[in-house]
Amino acid sequence: MTSLRSGGEFSLPVRVYIEDTDAGGIVYYVNYLKFMERSRTELMRSLGFDKNFIFNEDLMFVVRDVAVTYFKPAKLDDALNATASITGVKGATIIMQQSIRMGEDVLAAGHVTIACVDKTGVKPRRLPKSMLQTLRGASARA
Amino acid sequence: MTSLRSGGEFSLPVRVYIEDTDAGGIVYYVNYLKFMERSRTELMRSLGFDKNFIFNEDLMFVVRDVAVTYFKPAKLDDALNATASITGVKGATIIMQQSIRMGEDVLAAGHVTIACVDKTGVKPRRLPKSMLQTLRGASARA
Amino acid sequence: MTSLRSGGEFSLPVRVYIEDTDAGGIVYYVNYLKFMERSRTELMRSLGFDKNFIFNEDLMFVVRDVAVTYFKPAKLDDALNATASITGVKGATIIMQQSIRMGEDVLAAGHVTIACVDKTGVKPRRLPKSMLQTLRGASARA
Amino acid sequence: MTSLRSGGEFSLPVRVYIEDTDAGGIVYYVNYLKFMERSRTELMRSLGFDKNFIFNEDLMFVVRDVAVTYFKPAKLDDALNATASITGVKGATIIMQQSIRMGEDVLAAGHVTIACVDKTGVKPRRLPKSMLQTLRGASARA
Repeated sequence: MTSLRSGGEFSLPVRVYIEDTDAGGIVYYVNYLKFMERSRTELMRSLGFDKNFIFNEDLMFVVRDVAVTYFKPAKLDDALNATASITGVKGATIIMQQSIRMGEDVLAAGHVTIACVDKTGVKPRRLPKSMLQTLRGASARA
Repeated sequence: MTSLRSGGEFSLPVRVYIEDTDAGGIVYYVNYLKFMERSRTELMRSLGFDKNFIFNEDLMFVVRDVAVTYFKPAKLDDALNATASITGVKGATIIMQQSIRMGEDVLAAGHVTIACVDKTGVKPRRLPKSMLQTLRGASARA
Repeated sequence: MTSLRSGGEFSLPVRVYIEDTDAGGIVYYVNYLKFMERSRTELMRSLGFDKNFIFNEDLMFVVRDVAVTYFKPAKLDDALNATASITGVKGATIIMQQSIRMGEDVLAAGHVTIACVDKTGVKPRRLPKSMLQTLRGASARA
Repeated sequence: MTSLRSGGEFSLPVRVYIEDTDAGGIVYYVNYLKFMERSRTELMRSLGFDKNFIFNEDLMFVVRDVAVTYFKPAKLDDALNATASITGVKGATIIMQQSIRMGEDVLAAGHVTIACVDKTGVKPRRLPKSMLQTLRGASARA
């Protein structure tokens, strides 16, 4: 699965399958959030922060808020890109800008705020120092 | 399926099934958007705007933007309520406030903007006059 | 949420929402398996076997195999029933017959074999004795 | 997205994301059917039968029946392969054997019968002659 980075933007190819569509004949708008999360996950993995890292640190990441604007629909078989850029890192929070594109067209765009919490899933926890540094280094605004 | 209305708020009971959860042991945050849409759909149906109405009018509704803030997680078997309130109606657009609650607790809240478009799914179309009036009458701010 | 039982068959009303459909304009066939599981879950709950019972007994249920035949498609807004009947109970295994119906029409039908395993999710475990008796009493072939 | 063929078996790499998991901490068993369909879709695409071909021929493919046996669970982050092999082609029907594997381990396996129908989605239609020949040529039992 190829992916490229330029100017701090991570881009993951996503193919639209029948599971992603709805009776309107287009991608069900909720599913763009899944595509965006796949991209965030691969961005984090590319920086060394996979499931094992997170388990070893006894922390969890939860989505605090999400906002998406939809511009154009995608359809079955479309070859899309889901992008993720780190645009904010502080204390216990990571902010990412995300988009769904087809070629040069932006089909949807938005941002998501992710909170670092302890294993109970409730109590905020500061990001591990090394993670904070790496994420800041990978930030699109760095 | 019972549902009640008070002060313009529509509330749909939603049970959490295993399909709704993720490996964090909680409801996958993306799925709250499905619960919210179920509530919007039932609100519209209760006002007479079901699939047949929409087909007969040759129009479509598409989500233009959505924003959700997450406060507390829900878990397997939880009995939730997904609420929807019409808070804005103009020209070709409907705005709804939505929440996911468990008893008095608000687990997630947000709003969604829905655009009325023609059958092609692209060109904006004014809401049918009778619909405009009914939705304004059902508005939480009416 | 109403549900009725006659001759050992449990029936859960299921409304088709846009989330359930695909670009073919019908319910995505994979989603019938979710409807079937909702019905199984409510059948088990009606017998006293909810999440708490299962946690207290330190056991888990996993699907061992599933087979479904599809006869007719369901569409957006359709009011369906997902049925579940216990047709086999032995040792560590429960077999259920299931169907998706609209009125008298059977849209899909199949069966699922569920295995009782220990908390690790791997090792088979005999059903608790009281559960075995209750399930046999509720069996459609009892 | 790489994929390889040997002995008529098509294999598609599939990464497990949080969207695929459930509160049991494993891949939700229903989602294996999505992985299997992705693999079928890519197999058909590799043979020249993509959405455009199907639209041009005014036909549709619907799943007639599906059966899956589950052997071992997959977990978050796992790198799986979803395989598809054409094992039967006749008249209006295609049968495929499918599996989900991790390395040499078979996590799930089954088969699916796909029926060719006309645009109404109901009436059976013979496979186009050129398609019949190509699929037989690609059959694992050819």
